[in-house]
Amino acid sequence: MRRIHVIGIGAGDPDQLTLQAVKALRSTDVFFLLDKGEVKGDLTRLRRDMLDAHVPEGSYRVVEARDPERDRTAGGTSYAPAVEDWRAARAGIYERLIAEELGEEDTGAFLVWGDPSLYDSTLGILQEVLERGAVEFAYEVVPGISSVSSLVARHRTGLNRVARPVQITTGRRLAEGFPEGVDDVVVMLDAHQAFRRYADQDIDIYWGAYLGTPDEILVSGPLAEAAPRIERLRAEARERKGWIMDTYLLRRDPKGGA
Amino acid sequence: MRRIHVIGIGAGDPDQLTLQAVKALRSTDVFFLLDKGEVKGDLTRLRRDMLDAHVPEGSYRVVEARDPERDRTAGGTSYAPAVEDWRAARAGIYERLIAEELGEEDTGAFLVWGDPSLYDSTLGILQEVLERGAVEFAYEVVPGISSVSSLVARHRTGLNRVARPVQITTGRRLAEGFPEGVDDVVVMLDAHQAFRRYADQDIDIYWGAYLGTPDEILVSGPLAEAAPRIERLRAEARERKGWIMDTYLLRRDPKGGA
Ligand SMILES: C[S@@+](CC[C@H](N)C(=O)[O-])C[C@H]1O[C@@H](n2cnc3c(N)ncnc32)[C@H](O)[C@@H]1O
Ligand SMILES: C[S@@+](CC[C@H](N)C(=O)[O-])C[C@H]1O[C@@H](n2cnc3c(N)ncnc32)[C@H](O)[C@@H]1O
Repeated sequence: MRRIHVIGIGAGDPDQLTLQAVKALRSTDVFFLLDKGEVKGDLTRLRRDMLDAHVPEGSYRVVEARDPERDRTAGGTSYAPAVEDWRAARAGIYERLIAEELGEEDTGAFLVWGDPSLYDSTLGILQEVLERGAVEFAYEVVPGISSVSSLVARHRTGLNRVARPVQITTGRRLAEGFPEGVDDVVVMLDAHQAFRRYADQDIDIYWGAYLGTPDEILVSGPLAEAAPRIERLRAEARERKGWIMDTYLLRRDPKGGA
Repeated sequence: MRRIHVIGIGAGDPDQLTLQAVKALRSTDVFFLLDKGEVKGDLTRLRRDMLDAHVPEGSYRVVEARDPERDRTAGGTSYAPAVEDWRAARAGIYERLIAEELGEEDTGAFLVWGDPSLYDSTLGILQEVLERGAVEFAYEVVPGISSVSSLVARHRTGLNRVARPVQITTGRRLAEGFPEGVDDVVVMLDAHQAFRRYADQDIDIYWGAYLGTPDEILVSGPLAEAAPRIERLRAEARERKGWIMDTYLLRRDPKGGA
């Protein structure tokens, strides 16, 4: 039976690998590295560096493939269908990779950024590949340090306040309104700095870009003061590197509750 | 200047330690192990085993202290004050430990279960100790694999569905009502199996107890079917071991959305 590891590799700092992840790397025959074809070649390089650092040379193969881009031009209401097409296309690619590149007794691995459970499609796609029924395999998931954990660790704050909830959501959702029933909200996948809409409210922000990497930038403080600073730093960094990955925690009514 | 590491050690599996955590362990002079005085001696033992496995003998000292129990008899409305008293008491203990057990140039460490950012008071207490002003130190946080990441990895599912939010909350909150605006909810600190209240709804549950340990138990499925099974397994396990740690994800309208 073919086996597959879905390995969370942390969100930027190679030392965020767990011992379990290192063991999984070492028991892998074929690594599938999917390139999103963007300037994020940096991220593929980090994966290769991890293999160099932790897995004996000659003990594995790397198969690179192009990961189809999601159609982001289809805005607003057609968001879900675009995602569906994209997932089907990816399922086809994963199916082919597994069927053609992995021997019957081999173990393959997908190296997932951060934690595989957060805004990542790998698990959904593998499930879909299994449902198609063309190729069989067993798989397991190795949890990783998410950018969310990394963010709050660097800011030395908690995700939640005592006995209170925390929500993790997207920039798109935050743009529609502040989530109900929670005062602590982590925002990912925000291309439009949705936090700006709330700059007149009593909210603290803990923001981080390129967390865990040498380019890391951290800003925290009352949103009204921090927002313009983040906008400026974000624009500069994006210009300089060609891409940006950032995430933030919004803490409403920061003095309220412990 | 005294230095302190707040190290997330994962939620049960010693291989969930990150390479960063191992490095932090190795650069620590004094480990503070706080015993909650319960049958959870198991958890203190796991920490000692980690030190034995990763830190050269003779290179560190361990200081054990008793962590005051929170007054759980004060129910309902007086919950917050009880928590406050308890935090003040703990701040006093931490202050004394740091001032008396840590030399001016030494590095101390607190080993925090799971990820220090989730329902853990260590960071709040250290902040409080600093604010008291009696002892000075620098500190940093090493993120860890939380029981939440561990739960969904074992169930090989995501925390969120595509482009949708997820909330992390407590059993106490869930007992008051299903959180608004989210269909994916992770519940921690639930001593009363608050999920039972929702067993007539179209919800899938992914439940795990003693995650990452040899006693791990996993149950998933439609809540109506899974709830009685979880109740039974939970009662048996609790009886057998004397304590239980469990957490779960509720996924409302599981067929809705990808
Ligand atoms: C497709 S999601 C993947 C998240 C990933 N699975 C995790 O656990 O962090 C990508 C989003 O994660 C966040 N992110 C990932 N890595 C980051 C980093 N190193 N610094 C800041 N944000 C990061 C950003 O919000 C980005 O838009
Ligand atoms: C005080 S909180 C600490 C959480 C911890 N900081 C973390 O990141 O997992 C304790 C709660 O975490 C959950 N928990 C921690 N470890 C667990 C484990 N090994 N299995 C299941 N649940 C666990 C339970 O819900 C428990 O009530």
